[in-house]
Amino acid sequence: MAQLRDPDEPVSRRDRPAKPPLSRAVITAAASELVRRDGLDAVTLRKVADRLDTGPASLYVYVANREDLLDRMLDQALSEVPEVGADPAGWQAALVALFSGMLAALDRYPGIAQVGLGSVSRAPGELAIAENALALLHAGGMPDQAAAWACDALLLYTFAHAVEHAIERKRPPTAPQHKSPDTDYRALRDYYQSLPSDRFPHLTRMAASLTTGDDTDRFEFGLDALIRGAAQFS
Amino acid sequence: MAQLRDPDEPVSRRDRPAKPPLSRAVITAAASELVRRDGLDAVTLRKVADRLDTGPASLYVYVANREDLLDRMLDQALSEVPEVGADPAGWQAALVALFSGMLAALDRYPGIAQVGLGSVSRAPGELAIAENALALLHAGGMPDQAAAWACDALLLYTFAHAVEHAIERKRPPTAPQHKSPDTDYRALRDYYQSLPSDRFPHLTRMAASLTTGDDTDRFEFGLDALIRGAAQFS
Repeated sequence: MAQLRDPDEPVSRRDRPAKPPLSRAVITAAASELVRRDGLDAVTLRKVADRLDTGPASLYVYVANREDLLDRMLDQALSEVPEVGADPAGWQAALVALFSGMLAALDRYPGIAQVGLGSVSRAPGELAIAENALALLHAGGMPDQAAAWACDALLLYTFAHAVEHAIERKRPPTAPQHKSPDTDYRALRDYYQSLPSDRFPHLTRMAASLTTGDDTDRFEFGLDALIRGAAQFS
Repeated sequence: MAQLRDPDEPVSRRDRPAKPPLSRAVITAAASELVRRDGLDAVTLRKVADRLDTGPASLYVYVANREDLLDRMLDQALSEVPEVGADPAGWQAALVALFSGMLAALDRYPGIAQVGLGSVSRAPGELAIAENALALLHAGGMPDQAAAWACDALLLYTFAHAVEHAIERKRPPTAPQHKSPDTDYRALRDYYQSLPSDRFPHLTRMAASLTTGDDTDRFEFGLDALIRGAAQFS
């Protein structure tokens, strides 16, 4: 999805050839590299400035503060989400494709999804995804109120999955709580089966079902369920 | 829900009357107070030890490390979730009550929900909620595989809402992205309506629907949709 133009972005006055000119794009890219390497907490304007061989004061010409920078980084990630048109396989499949694309984009910037939780975005990247989702929900015949709240829930659910992925990446693979594509589901199944069956009759009986399927299966199941369930409000 | 006994918890040898004896409960409570006041990032074993007028080394008798402490804090919060029996209004209403209780418990320890994202809990608090949810889904006739994945999605969805709440609490109320029970939905509606309608036809047309309802309405809509949608996999 194309980013809206930003006509009032200031133009850098630095013209020494050794340093590339600053711009919001250059600053956002440097910060994204930091978040990818060290996580969201590592992003400070000072560290971003260090990477760009400048001082924090120079960055304030382009970004208002740390929160503004994080919002721009999230917007950058979300702007990479491919637009999804009506799908021959149906509007529900198109929605699953849209939010799978959103998850993939967020996964390319581990940690940034955290910024999407708890904020109502007015940035073009998230607005474009919301518009795309609402168009598909509308095409599916969902009433406006259900479509509006379903859009909200689908965005939250996708952000939450991406946050989980980022946390998993940071955790040492030997930690018992580690959950990832390589999760030792066999060990987890054994654990559920080892619980006292009088206290946990369903966890013990359903140990196999609980540990079947990978992260993509689970993500798509929840998306699908949310979409199908929301379609019943009419 | 009752906590499982922890028979191998060490017994404190500190018997000076001025300091209360250390225990996992005392340490967890002190850490929870910290997270409530300053957020999750503020919790370090050193700061918890300071609050208890002792040194970090004393804490290591009770908790293995920071991650272990956070897991115990999450377990403490989740252990406060009321068990929900079969509801005369139906198994779906019972599930909404269960996860609303979980959200309320997490909201009492702002920040702790973050620990629930990205981890497969083996602690009694979360196991009890999962067992409760599976029993209700089973009572509703949902097949095992759908019930197992629905349980996963409902937990994730509830953790994500609680994380949002914690983030909202930390953000200054004047920030434009602030979302809370007091969100200025009128300003947001005006914003959606101000967007270019050729690029965002649905966001502009649906501005009123998008800004109708409070956080509880939205949380319960998503829960309900997830439950109804999962019930269709049979």
